[in-house]
Amino acid sequence: MKNTKKTVRTVPLLIGGALVIGLASPASALEALPKQPPIPKDNPMSAAKVELGKQLYFDPRLSLNGTVSCNSCHDVSGSGTDNRPVSVGVGAKTGGRSAPTVWNAAFMTSQFWDGRAATLEDQAKGPILNPIEMAMPSEKAVIDRLSSIPGYREQFTKVFGGANALTYDNIAKAIAAYERTLLTPDSPFDRYVKGDKKALSAEAQRGMKLAQEVGCTACHNGVNFAGPALPMGQGFYAKFPTFSDNEYVKKYQLDADEGRYEVTKNDADKHMFRVPTWRNVALTAPYFHNGSVKTLDEAVRVMAKTQLNKELKENEVKDIVAFLNSLTGEFPKQTMPRLPATPNMSVVGE
Amino acid sequence: MKNTKKTVRTVPLLIGGALVIGLASPASALEALPKQPPIPKDNPMSAAKVELGKQLYFDPRLSLNGTVSCNSCHDVSGSGTDNRPVSVGVGAKTGGRSAPTVWNAAFMTSQFWDGRAATLEDQAKGPILNPIEMAMPSEKAVIDRLSSIPGYREQFTKVFGGANALTYDNIAKAIAAYERTLLTPDSPFDRYVKGDKKALSAEAQRGMKLAQEVGCTACHNGVNFAGPALPMGQGFYAKFPTFSDNEYVKKYQLDADEGRYEVTKNDADKHMFRVPTWRNVALTAPYFHNGSVKTLDEAVRVMAKTQLNKELKENEVKDIVAFLNSLTGEFPKQTMPRLPATPNMSVVGE
Repeated sequence: MKNTKKTVRTVPLLIGGALVIGLASPASALEALPKQPPIPKDNPMSAAKVELGKQLYFDPRLSLNGTVSCNSCHDVSGSGTDNRPVSVGVGAKTGGRSAPTVWNAAFMTSQFWDGRAATLEDQAKGPILNPIEMAMPSEKAVIDRLSSIPGYREQFTKVFGGANALTYDNIAKAIAAYERTLLTPDSPFDRYVKGDKKALSAEAQRGMKLAQEVGCTACHNGVNFAGPALPMGQGFYAKFPTFSDNEYVKKYQLDADEGRYEVTKNDADKHMFRVPTWRNVALTAPYFHNGSVKTLDEAVRVMAKTQLNKELKENEVKDIVAFLNSLTGEFPKQTMPRLPATPNMSVVGE
Repeated sequence: MKNTKKTVRTVPLLIGGALVIGLASPASALEALPKQPPIPKDNPMSAAKVELGKQLYFDPRLSLNGTVSCNSCHDVSGSGTDNRPVSVGVGAKTGGRSAPTVWNAAFMTSQFWDGRAATLEDQAKGPILNPIEMAMPSEKAVIDRLSSIPGYREQFTKVFGGANALTYDNIAKAIAAYERTLLTPDSPFDRYVKGDKKALSAEAQRGMKLAQEVGCTACHNGVNFAGPALPMGQGFYAKFPTFSDNEYVKKYQLDADEGRYEVTKNDADKHMFRVPTWRNVALTAPYFHNGSVKTLDEAVRVMAKTQLNKELKENEVKDIVAFLNSLTGEFPKQTMPRLPATPNMSVVGE
């Protein structure tokens, strides 16, 4: 939190999003991943809470028919996404936006493509009740179901205390606590900025320079390459597409979604999207809010044109892609959770 | 394999299935879970093969649209099933049979409810291509997709050797090797038969005796309580329902499915089903091939009536359920696999 406050003081003008396009990257733009993400004061970490959160994250019983868990669309065994254009919810329903990665999401200053959740806690509450995602009918239905599972009742009491520990807020807190452990340090880039000058190839080094010179890092800066470390909930947004009179916008229908406007109904928010992280971006194809672009090299071309009105040469695209590949971090080994049982019965029906 | 052969010599008359109903349990009926399952000579175990198999088991890219993995329906974090009446495949398609548990499946002498696969290797090949499950269009499509993932290409070569290591057979071998590690030893029952007489409650001990006296263990015997250790592929079947003129058969539509007959078209196989394991049965609700019975106590009542034409008293049901609960084993800690990446692109589409 200390770090967040300090950074805020240096970049107060960036708050609000629309104004930032084209600003020169601050000197601190390229930073190694910190060891710890910001932890909200009202949700301190503990091993027992993280373990509970992991169980909830992997538990398909948080969905109406027991087929979709958080992990179904944000796969911790992989890229933290489902690598699909858009995700598939209960009953094979689909929406219009692609699942963002859960890895390093703890560093994002707002959640969802439109930033409609301020924190990981707020985010976790959404998909469980979304009729095209996990489709539970109400918070009460979620609490009732988890209350019918003895292992959850016990753990919520142990972790949160009190007579009424199994609440929707506490479900979200446990999931968010687990998600704050999902960090990928030690990418070649991180090793490079920490002093290992051999960690990046010549190609990747050229790409890094180019990304700054061309202007990509005006938005893709900060520890997560997703904007500065604003206070949680402030969010960092950019208009996408900024330049819409080009073939890419048509081909990939990039202006069909009005982004943050759909949340705020404020005209200034039309086509504003949360700036996505570049960390592990090489692993999270397909790209953009609608998952319409299949490969990273094409995504780089599209961004240069739609955001900076520039056409990159193929060797420039290649160099930038090499740099983006250097942002793939080390994925920490995970133990699998053991989901608490319901002996002699099942709590998911038809 | 040695153990299997020995057992076969002692129970040759049981081969064939239909004849076994009503046979007294052999003296060896109640056995602790061995440390190792039978390992086929043509698929020896190795750490690298098991690790590859685990990745494949958890990888939704084995399904048409990247949404369904083996683990989706046979959840290793839980009971090894999805605890649903029937599973949900790609496009929310459903079939007519409930997913059997993967835990201790290595001890089963045939696979699927109708025994249509002789081995775990054979079984693994089915759901990937089943249009209502993982829905891949052909073996070639599966091989092509996995071949586009560098980490799989490398591992198949390392594990199986040769120029053409990534074959459908080898995919199945790796998955089966992983599945052979999914054993749950040290249930209260196992500790009891190994000499810890306090491991079972008085209730469970009464239930154990009753299950033998009533006749349940005529079929539910052997290390997996799923019949004797026949040679792999022989399978151990029973007619279900045997007595069909009762309310349960109507209520739960237990005679709608013709079982093994649908595979063999042999009249003697009508309504013959593989005898399911009792190990961890307390965790695998809902019950029976169609998942129609929601609780274990009701499943016990149904089985007594449909298989033995007996009506149990409620205290007898309770005792048998207590015994069945004592068959819940220790689930070994699992590390999560890391799925090999496809940098800069995705291999799952719409």
